[in-house]
Amino acid sequence: MTISMHQATIPTFIRALSSLADVLEKAAAHAEAKKIDPAVFINSRLAPDMFPLVRQVQIASDAAKGGAARLAQAEPPAFEDNETTFPQLIERARKTVAYLETLKPEQIDGSEERTVTWKTRTSEKSMKGQPYLLHHVIPNVYFHVTAAYLILRHNGVELGKQDFLGKS
Amino acid sequence: MTISMHQATIPTFIRALSSLADVLEKAAAHAEAKKIDPAVFINSRLAPDMFPLVRQVQIASDAAKGGAARLAQAEPPAFEDNETTFPQLIERARKTVAYLETLKPEQIDGSEERTVTWKTRTSEKSMKGQPYLLHHVIPNVYFHVTAAYLILRHNGVELGKQDFLGKS
Repeated sequence: MTISMHQATIPTFIRALSSLADVLEKAAAHAEAKKIDPAVFINSRLAPDMFPLVRQVQIASDAAKGGAARLAQAEPPAFEDNETTFPQLIERARKTVAYLETLKPEQIDGSEERTVTWKTRTSEKSMKGQPYLLHHVIPNVYFHVTAAYLILRHNGVELGKQDFLGKS
Repeated sequence: MTISMHQATIPTFIRALSSLADVLEKAAAHAEAKKIDPAVFINSRLAPDMFPLVRQVQIASDAAKGGAARLAQAEPPAFEDNETTFPQLIERARKTVAYLETLKPEQIDGSEERTVTWKTRTSEKSMKGQPYLLHHVIPNVYFHVTAAYLILRHNGVELGKQDFLGKS
């Protein structure tokens, strides 16, 4: 008994991005209840040289769909990164979940030893599929989902750890 | 070809806690260079009802050693949660790594279907080993390591994403 690459990838990211969408729903409701311009939250950042909420959500989406697609040797959908409202960011997270749901076990299983190559801003990198998933994609997705959650917590949205962990 | 429970657990948490120790080393050096009382960083939090840095590090340690030990049916070392300085927090993270290194594949492999039971502040919970690892322990560890990192970024410590992702 072991974990398949598909099991470690798809249910994990579906859960993380679904939780992110739910957290954004709570933030939208909070902004409305408190009569705060939603743009205040969407453009908030934890340090002057860090990305604001909108980019954290976009990068969490890109990390999940890009990572899963590379393992599946598939082409992920391109999103325009033009979201400016909570409903648009929630839709972005849910569209990411919908794409992840299309990736089948037979596309991702067996990718442990396959070399995955990707471009960063400054270079081209490559790793075997298993360390790519465990030590690059999974931490990256959780980093940006956590950053989005903490930006909202920092700005007074009432959230608890269970909102981050999501539903069983 | 698949991922063993040991592979998904031990190298993942060793890397996350080692990165956390390295990040804390950078924060200690920053505090010294800027002549800022290290306690300012150690007691900093992102929201009044969130835990400060010191607790984030302790919980990251507990989540990693407790989660791995439960999967291995072993007893994790108990730490006293009495850290008040950067050197003590760095030691806490490194002691956690040292413990994780003692857990052997034969202790953790095969725990996918084993029922894991643990106590929260308010109840007793149980899950099968595989969802416990993928949907509870791994996100929890990354949540608290990310929170520690973001508290330090928020307070002006110069860190980049690679400090979070750690060394290959």
